Amino acid sequence: MAQFRLFPTLALVFSLLLGCTGKSTSKKKPDYALVIHGGAGTILKKNMSEEEEKAYRDALEAALQTGEEVLASGGSSVDAVVAVITLMEDSPLFNAGKGAVFTHEGKNELDASLMNGKDLNVGAIAGVTRIKNPIQLARKVMENSEHVFFARDGAEAFALEQGMELMDPSYFYTDRRWQGLQRALEKEKSQKSATTEPQIPDSKFGTVGCVALDKNGNLAAGTSTGGMTNKRFGRIGDSPIIGAGTYANNNSCAVSATGHGEFFIRNMVAYDIAAMMSYQSMPVAQAAEAAIEKVGKMNATGGVIVLDGNGNIAMPFNTEGMYRGYIIAGEKPVIKIYKE
Amino acid sequence: MAQFRLFPTLALVFSLLLGCTGKSTSKKKPDYALVIHGGAGTILKKNMSEEEEKAYRDALEAALQTGEEVLASGGSSVDAVVAVITLMEDSPLFNAGKGAVFTHEGKNELDASLMNGKDLNVGAIAGVTRIKNPIQLARKVMENSEHVFFARDGAEAFALEQGMELMDPSYFYTDRRWQGLQRALEKEKSQKSATTEPQIPDSKFGTVGCVALDKNGNLAAGTSTGGMTNKRFGRIGDSPIIGAGTYANNNSCAVSATGHGEFFIRNMVAYDIAAMMSYQSMPVAQAAEAAIEKVGKMNATGGVIVLDGNGNIAMPFNTEGMYRGYIIAGEKPVIKIYKE
Repeated sequence: MAQFRLFPTLALVFSLLLGCTGKSTSKKKPDYALVIHGGAGTILKKNMSEEEEKAYRDALEAALQTGEEVLASGGSSVDAVVAVITLMEDSPLFNAGKGAVFTHEGKNELDASLMNGKDLNVGAIAGVTRIKNPIQLARKVMENSEHVFFARDGAEAFALEQGMELMDPSYFYTDRRWQGLQRALEKEKSQKSATTEPQIPDSKFGTVGCVALDKNGNLAAGTSTGGMTNKRFGRIGDSPIIGAGTYANNNSCAVSATGHGEFFIRNMVAYDIAAMMSYQSMPVAQAAEAAIEKVGKMNATGGVIVLDGNGNIAMPFNTEGMYRGYIIAGEKPVIKIYKE
Repeated sequence: MAQFRLFPTLALVFSLLLGCTGKSTSKKKPDYALVIHGGAGTILKKNMSEEEEKAYRDALEAALQTGEEVLASGGSSVDAVVAVITLMEDSPLFNAGKGAVFTHEGKNELDASLMNGKDLNVGAIAGVTRIKNPIQLARKVMENSEHVFFARDGAEAFALEQGMELMDPSYFYTDRRWQGLQRALEKEKSQKSATTEPQIPDSKFGTVGCVALDKNGNLAAGTSTGGMTNKRFGRIGDSPIIGAGTYANNNSCAVSATGHGEFFIRNMVAYDIAAMMSYQSMPVAQAAEAAIEKVGKMNATGGVIVLDGNGNIAMPFNTEGMYRGYIIAGEKPVIKIYKE
């Protein structure tokens, strides 16, 4: 009997170790699972006060708990992803919703996308300035429109027609992000060309994302972001682009990405992971790492969270850290911030 | 000696036959090659007057000739794609540039994207209303910006900063497209919900695209469109989405798509073809047909043009017709409209 009790314990230890390094777990399919990220970047323990770290850990824990409640009670993976991202959008800590960064013109322009792995339905929006929870608008696009991607004032007109409340844009003001813009503008002044991207570390990070597997075996993925500090010209990054920042397909995996969006678009990161799994039978961890490696070869940084239909998880990134965590049915939630 | 002369002839006949059915050619790598499309849809010979058919054939021939001149004189695949699409945008026949369809509000909102297969650099714009040649703006985004995708008024601000001329929106007025919108609006009135897409045949087709292989072995792809008649809410289709409507990679292929954009986004059609070629060593024709089959399984229609680094071409579609053609160095140009 002893060996039967030892086995699950060893399997758990083994899978947690693998989880830490972004490798896949390798046990029995769990009832449900959910993975989140709150952005990748130069996140170093030495730069973080205890209070800051606790605030992030608390926010990530609350997000996981929200997701677990939905999934444990039989909610769909889409329900879980939307509930989790809504919570993260409402936190000022992440670059999405309330905590969104400012554009060059001092506005907050939000992007989000959502994909249902069961039927490959998708919804995406870019450049909205008055939507409290962009992920909820992405869901309305997915469910109530024959189109899948709306931009800017058009997306807000659709939101109004759907009965959504439009916020005063001042809702998105946070002092921290405003100061971030001022630093970027200062930096820009000292550079030659106004169109050159200011090299402020992490000015392009902080996106939130969630992937989930529900009790019915359906996968879903969602991503929400304020984009890049000091962005201009209605810049669209990878977060609202299906196949780049977000992808879900019951036959392969669910993915949400964070990082230097332009390179995630050029490499089609989210769909590429699914394609390697589908066409080369690659396991989650190997596919996710291969995709981040391609991005790295272009000297770009970021990370992804990936979940397959068997509950295998990968969370690779090539930055100093990535706010991340996961729950697997019947296990304790796991939260991580730094490279470990 | 006779057999040596017979062989190339047979090979040519064989490859033309294959070309007709969307299969790949199978001969020596040509010096250069270029493929174009002017949209897929319910294009039936019985509905087309001789004059109309001649107008389309002439426009396609002029486009191929323009591309051939660029490539034969050693120009890059990007140069060729931009020159060809510029010409097609200037024609009122296609749903791109001058001939763009009208939105619900009676405007013309143009999308375009461009990808360089050599370095995977990309440029894309969505929803511009005053840019004569959206493909040229996409090129400026690709070459002169660290970002890759700009939307609407933002994209136009970038164009101005790049010294491009902004047109009066009235430039895009054509009576044919205006009547198309009126028919769509009438149809919509008789439907229950204003957000339901009007079922006007081909109201979502006519996109133009070009893929090219230059003498240096570099691939490029571009797509330009006015989108869907009566579109609303800043709707973005697949044409400006890298991986959906456009993709190019020297290691696999160059793709431009046309059709019901929402489904091309959900299936990541352009990148999916490249992925099947890269990860499953699938030949061009097989990969292109597999991708169109997936779209068809969702009851959606459209087509793609695909070209690999060896000059193999595929042009599959699941509609009644697709305006299309190609040139292969040293051969006569081929132009086709209907299913054959």
